[in-house]
Amino acid sequence: MQFWFEFASTYSYPAALRVETLACRHGVPLEWKAFLLGPIFQAQGWNDSPFNLFPVQGRYMWRDLERICADLELPFRRPSQFPRHSVLAARIACRFAAEPWLPDFVRAVFRANFAEDRDIAQPEVLEHSLNELGLPGAKLLERARSPEGKTPLRARTEQAVTLGIFGAPSFIVGDELFWGNDRLEAALAWAARSLDQTVNTALKPEPPG
Amino acid sequence: MQFWFEFASTYSYPAALRVETLACRHGVPLEWKAFLLGPIFQAQGWNDSPFNLFPVQGRYMWRDLERICADLELPFRRPSQFPRHSVLAARIACRFAAEPWLPDFVRAVFRANFAEDRDIAQPEVLEHSLNELGLPGAKLLERARSPEGKTPLRARTEQAVTLGIFGAPSFIVGDELFWGNDRLEAALAWAARSLDQTVNTALKPEPPG
Repeated sequence: MQFWFEFASTYSYPAALRVETLACRHGVPLEWKAFLLGPIFQAQGWNDSPFNLFPVQGRYMWRDLERICADLELPFRRPSQFPRHSVLAARIACRFAAEPWLPDFVRAVFRANFAEDRDIAQPEVLEHSLNELGLPGAKLLERARSPEGKTPLRARTEQAVTLGIFGAPSFIVGDELFWGNDRLEAALAWAARSLDQTVNTALKPEPPG
Repeated sequence: MQFWFEFASTYSYPAALRVETLACRHGVPLEWKAFLLGPIFQAQGWNDSPFNLFPVQGRYMWRDLERICADLELPFRRPSQFPRHSVLAARIACRFAAEPWLPDFVRAVFRANFAEDRDIAQPEVLEHSLNELGLPGAKLLERARSPEGKTPLRARTEQAVTLGIFGAPSFIVGDELFWGNDRLEAALAWAARSLDQTVNTALKPEPPG
């Protein structure tokens, strides 16, 4: 299952914090796909988060998120800025997508934004998160900010559009798209069923003949 | 718990078909509140369903709804017209909100729109649904179309705005708003907890003294 997330996206926060545990429990392999929603929103004429453009929806979303985090026992503090610039964090997550520390880094950045109200647009904040994981933060940041660090994120975001992704978090299982933290369970159930079918097909004895 | 629904709204369909059973199971009293989304969308500059205005979201929604109905074993056929005019159906549901046949009528209209692809804007379709319930369809329609039949729905839709409702289905429990078919369980859990607290408070013995 592919997990498509945006560091500035509110509902990506609970999804990012629980996706690995749930995927493990279902035996579903997980791919972490950071991308940017900004260009996707701009393409449909929105120059800000829809939660800012449509304040009634925005008010609801903050209360809904607060209830969801309380239910999941996740710490939550409403960020004093929203949405925060997530380009640099996404570049890191995209450039180092294959590193074993990636899930820990992703969770640390989401906690910084939505539980600690820290500005994830600031390189120092991201460097701190990397250092805390025992990694050479300054060096990794430098590599993510280089021209070669920028290309993967641009390609990733274009791929999101091709896949029909229009919001975050999104989950992709084969040809199926699931949108929203509240679709995580359905996406995993779909992935687990697909895996079962693949295994059953592989184990099916050859027809006699 | 108040259940706010719009007959043209896709996600209101699975909610309308399962809300009564689930509310009974939780011991939560239910109020059925038909309203119109059109004026609410118009107020934020949308002259059509957002699923038509934003076709990528629209494509996703139809597939998502199809999966949800399959999971719930609800019949589903994509309506050949969307959204259908729901004013007359909503007037009936609003004018006769207190009638014991109301939930059956609501379900019949949702099935007509989303399982049978019938045009619920046509009085004959609604009259047929009423007749099928053993009711005097023509007479009830006439009363819903009279001036006194129009006022309750207008007031109801204004009340929705006051309550911060911006989409359908929505659920209201005390001061809490829950939006979407996927929030039905959370809304019921909230309602059940509130009821428990009320009962516990009422049963608490007077302090001695």
